[in-house]
Amino acid sequence: MTLSPTPRSTIRRGKDRAVTDRAALEQVLDAGMVCHLAFVTPDGHPMVVPTGYGHEDGTLYVHGSTGASSLRAGAGTQVCVNVTMLDGIVYSRSVFHHSVNYRSATVHGEARQVTDPDAKLHALRVITDHIAPGAWDHARGPSPQEFAKTAVLALDLHEAAVKIRTGGPGEDPDDLTPDRVGATWAGVLPLVRTWGTPQPCELLPADVAVPDYVTRRARQDGPRW
Amino acid sequence: MTLSPTPRSTIRRGKDRAVTDRAALEQVLDAGMVCHLAFVTPDGHPMVVPTGYGHEDGTLYVHGSTGASSLRAGAGTQVCVNVTMLDGIVYSRSVFHHSVNYRSATVHGEARQVTDPDAKLHALRVITDHIAPGAWDHARGPSPQEFAKTAVLALDLHEAAVKIRTGGPGEDPDDLTPDRVGATWAGVLPLVRTWGTPQPCELLPADVAVPDYVTRRARQDGPRW
Repeated sequence: MTLSPTPRSTIRRGKDRAVTDRAALEQVLDAGMVCHLAFVTPDGHPMVVPTGYGHEDGTLYVHGSTGASSLRAGAGTQVCVNVTMLDGIVYSRSVFHHSVNYRSATVHGEARQVTDPDAKLHALRVITDHIAPGAWDHARGPSPQEFAKTAVLALDLHEAAVKIRTGGPGEDPDDLTPDRVGATWAGVLPLVRTWGTPQPCELLPADVAVPDYVTRRARQDGPRW
Repeated sequence: MTLSPTPRSTIRRGKDRAVTDRAALEQVLDAGMVCHLAFVTPDGHPMVVPTGYGHEDGTLYVHGSTGASSLRAGAGTQVCVNVTMLDGIVYSRSVFHHSVNYRSATVHGEARQVTDPDAKLHALRVITDHIAPGAWDHARGPSPQEFAKTAVLALDLHEAAVKIRTGGPGEDPDDLTPDRVGATWAGVLPLVRTWGTPQPCELLPADVAVPDYVTRRARQDGPRW
C-alpha cells in the first residue's frame, strides 16, 4: 500500500530520498520515540512541541494534559507531525555536499480529540506500549481523576511523507577527479543509540528485580532507531 | 542572563521543568544536531521540517535550498524552532506517571533571510562547524553556483524557553505506601548516543587516513546529547 500524496505531502526537495511505501512509514514511527507536533495558535503563530506518541491501525495518538494549550489548539484543527531519527553525519569533499543520514516521517491532517472512554483508554495503552513496552500490564492503571486530566488526540496516518537518506556523500564530479578524490576525507560518522543500564528508583526495595520487559529492552541494541 | 519570557514562550505545563538560564539554552543547542522548524504555510496550514542548524552570538542559523518551500515561507515570517534530546524512559508505579527524561529548547521569532554574502558565508560556516566540526577548513568551499543555491535563515535567540527533565519518577503518594512501593518496578532506562566507527567513502584512496577532527569526534562519548 502506498502513501497518499497531496500537494502538501508531496516531497519536492530531495525526491530521490522520498519513500512511498506505507510499511516504511510504520517502520519510522516504530523506531522513533518522540514526535514533533506543529499547529497554528489561535493568534496565527506557528508552534511546535515535542511529545511521546503511539500508533496502531493507521492512526497516530498523542496525549497530554487537558490543560495543555497544544492539545486544546490541536483538536479539530490541522496539525503537522514529524518523527526524525538522525543516523549519521555525512562528510563530503565539499562544504556544500556535507549532509546527514536520517529517517523521517511527516504526517498532515486534522487532529481529533478521543473522547469515548474505551477508545481513550485503548489509545493511552497504545502510547504507553510504544514508550514503555510491557509497563501497562504491571503499573497501576489510570484513576478516574488521572483519566479525566489526560487528553488524547488522534491523527489519521493518511496524508504522509517519508524521507530516508543512507550511504556516503553525493559529490560534485569535479571533486572526484584522480587528483582531488583523496584530497579531503569523505565518509560517514554513524550515530548509534543504545539503552543504558536500568536505574532503579531510590525508593524501590532492594529485593525488587528489574523486570523482564525492562531488561529485554535494555539488552536490545537500542530502540531500533 | 535570563531568557526573555513572553506569553508564548512562558512555560505553563510542567513549570518545575522550566529553566530560565540563557546558558542552559546554549547547552541544549550545542548538544542537539537536528532542529524542528515550524511555520505557517501561505494557505494557513502548520508545517514542521527537521533540519540542521548552528548558532553563534545569540543567533540561530538554518540553511536549505533556495527552492525549498520551508525557507521561502520562513523568511520574514514567524517561525517556531524546537531542539529536543531524549535522555531516557521513566518507568513509574502508575501508568499516569510514566514519563521521559529530556532536554528541550523552543525559540519563537521572525526568521530573516541572510543575504549579505559575507554574513551568509559566515553563517554557513557556523552551521557546518556545528554539524561537522573541523570540516570547513578541509573541504572545498562553496562555488558561486552552490552559494547562490543555498538560502540561510537567521533567528534571534531572544524569545526562548528551555525545559529539562532528569531523575526518577514522580509518583502519587498512594503508590509509595509500604505495601505498594515495591509492587511495580520503577526507575529510569537511560538512552545513550555514541558515535560509531567512521566509514570512509568507497571512492577514497586506501591511504587516506581518517582525519583528526573526525577521529576525535568518534572517540568522544557521543555528541553531548
